[in-house]
Amino acid sequence: MSNYNANLKFDTRGLIPVAVQSAVNGRLLMLAYANQEALERTFETGEAWFYSRSRGELWHKGSTSGNVMKVLEVRGDCDGDAVLYLVEEAGPACHTGERSCFHRVLFGQGGEDCLFLHSLEEVIAARSAGEDERSYTKRLLREGPQRAAQKVGEEAVETAIALAVGDMEGAAEEAADLLYHLLAALKSREIPLNRVLKRLAERHRAPGKTAGADPN
Amino acid sequence: MSNYNANLKFDTRGLIPVAVQSAVNGRLLMLAYANQEALERTFETGEAWFYSRSRGELWHKGSTSGNVMKVLEVRGDCDGDAVLYLVEEAGPACHTGERSCFHRVLFGQGGEDCLFLHSLEEVIAARSAGEDERSYTKRLLREGPQRAAQKVGEEAVETAIALAVGDMEGAAEEAADLLYHLLAALKSREIPLNRVLKRLAERHRAPGKTAGADPN
Repeated sequence: MSNYNANLKFDTRGLIPVAVQSAVNGRLLMLAYANQEALERTFETGEAWFYSRSRGELWHKGSTSGNVMKVLEVRGDCDGDAVLYLVEEAGPACHTGERSCFHRVLFGQGGEDCLFLHSLEEVIAARSAGEDERSYTKRLLREGPQRAAQKVGEEAVETAIALAVGDMEGAAEEAADLLYHLLAALKSREIPLNRVLKRLAERHRAPGKTAGADPN
Repeated sequence: MSNYNANLKFDTRGLIPVAVQSAVNGRLLMLAYANQEALERTFETGEAWFYSRSRGELWHKGSTSGNVMKVLEVRGDCDGDAVLYLVEEAGPACHTGERSCFHRVLFGQGGEDCLFLHSLEEVIAARSAGEDERSYTKRLLREGPQRAAQKVGEEAVETAIALAVGDMEGAAEEAADLLYHLLAALKSREIPLNRVLKRLAERHRAPGKTAGADPN
């Protein structure tokens, strides 16, 4: 914490851009600015502080909306002129009510598919809580954890057979089914996906490394 | 493509900040700037163009290093003063040789754990190609796809039993084992995780929606 601004370059206004990424699902949530004091308060409180250019004042994100962002990690970039906050969201990051400020697609599609497992976890939770009786997810979860667990076994066997016989398209399909049912079964016991991913990271990442490096 | 800059605000220098995120693994790779021409070229070519503030010229990322970034999707933020490129990396994004420019941790840890499945896929590939005969991953993959597939079944059954009996800590552990072995088995057939996630997204996301919305 002591050398947090040793190598950061603030612009002529004393500001540095801050990209804010969800540590829950990997989505880029917003791009804002911090001055030195905003960074200091972020480090001191573990909550996201910025500098509002429009209001010309320090900005404790969520102080009015209640959606305070807990900051898990702060990174600086190679040349010290940008910062990344990795945060736990507590509601929509955007003033429009959207999860992310970056919700306007200008070009292309499919860019966030790599994050879809987290989106699917949210959708399963919504379906489970919803009223639509035609929802497969809702019906599956109403049957209880044992049924959801059984489906994990079934889909895994189908995945294993497709892999064993070398049916590549089938294996991708069955692995997708397996992931869906694993998420549903975890939901049936209210175990968050990130609890599993954290266990995975703890086990396969060497201590102190920021990128996975040493699974046995 | 036609209205790409209709609602974008360029600063007094004619620039807009661009956050660049990997569509392969969700990592934030860099923060750079674009002017109108850089955006136009990005839309026209599907490759990442920026404006270099230090050199004062258009910058086709990778034109010298060879690490051209394919742009899958471009998003604008709510108030139009920042842009997100979702890209396929083709080598290190950072001039230091690091994957991401944001490799300097200033505060905290664990912020990227939600992206760890992608990191683990990379680690499994590295172990498989490596020389370390003590590596469990290397030994498993040398035994071939049938053995790796068998392990998927075994770990799934262990996960299912932990879920069925309500052993929450055990279920998180076994689910982590299952994910590891699923990645290893996919690797044994050279099926990328993102191929599976893309199938999952296609199946569970309503057409045209940017956030997952309609699994059955």
